[in-house]
Amino acid sequence: MFVLGIDPGLSRCGYGCLEHGRKPRAVAAGVIRTDPKLDRPIRLAELQRELRDLIAELKPDVVAVERVLFQTNVSTAMGVGMASGLAMAEAASVGCDVVEYSPNEIKHAVAGWGGAGKDEVGAMVQTLLGLPKRLSPADAADAVAVALCHLARVPSRRTSASMKRVGGMVG
Amino acid sequence: MFVLGIDPGLSRCGYGCLEHGRKPRAVAAGVIRTDPKLDRPIRLAELQRELRDLIAELKPDVVAVERVLFQTNVSTAMGVGMASGLAMAEAASVGCDVVEYSPNEIKHAVAGWGGAGKDEVGAMVQTLLGLPKRLSPADAADAVAVALCHLARVPSRRTSASMKRVGGMVG
Repeated sequence: MFVLGIDPGLSRCGYGCLEHGRKPRAVAAGVIRTDPKLDRPIRLAELQRELRDLIAELKPDVVAVERVLFQTNVSTAMGVGMASGLAMAEAASVGCDVVEYSPNEIKHAVAGWGGAGKDEVGAMVQTLLGLPKRLSPADAADAVAVALCHLARVPSRRTSASMKRVGGMVG
Repeated sequence: MFVLGIDPGLSRCGYGCLEHGRKPRAVAAGVIRTDPKLDRPIRLAELQRELRDLIAELKPDVVAVERVLFQTNVSTAMGVGMASGLAMAEAASVGCDVVEYSPNEIKHAVAGWGGAGKDEVGAMVQTLLGLPKRLSPADAADAVAVALCHLARVPSRRTSASMKRVGGMVG
């Protein structure tokens, strides 16, 4: 099973794809950027095309998206919401399951508490995936954290079987 | 020149297409609905597909979208923002010019003042287009108002020529 995590944004949209197994394996991680100097419709069209290509290439079973909250980053929240909407529409239109997780749920699942900072999340992503160094930029690590949150949350048959075998999904 | 106005929304997304001429002519108007009982990603994918089909069918030169403001309808603003983002991305991806107008700009252009209510806007849309009765539902009339706002605002060459001939674009 492949899970694609998305940390939505219009200037920087993080993505991280994990393959589920005894230990989750990072398949791809990175950031889609659009140029803030361009008009918003052009940037949205570019992001849409990049997301579509990414989903076509990675063929995830599940796309997990960080939920956009109104309370934070009011000035950028609308662009983030639009990016999130594009990701969900592209994923659902090709038959992926789509789930949303709040920032707190993601931080809790990955770092053990909902108030974890970006630095803690980055360190835990590195540890959980057994990477030689931290994922960079932070948006890519954040997107991987969304995918890890999904793997930790979903009691799928395959997950349950793995957990019986190895005593835990990621370690 | 064809202008497609969009009054974005996830439950109800109004659209109204006008042909520019001595007097603007309504080519199409209506509402795209998605079922609130379905999951949001499915609804976004449906709306995306409908908007894509609509733009492919009507082939507008310009897509004018009502700008989503944070101050109003906080509970639904994110869904409205996502719908707006889908419309702008679909339009820009096929080469349409995309413009956004605030609710106040639209009401001012159509009804003469920014505080006009839905009823006044509906009545003015009927008058300006010389329709035998009001457009229904209101979301369709609101979308036509967005397109009328664009025609009133843009001093395109063709618009200027028409204005010289007839002394006004819509009258």
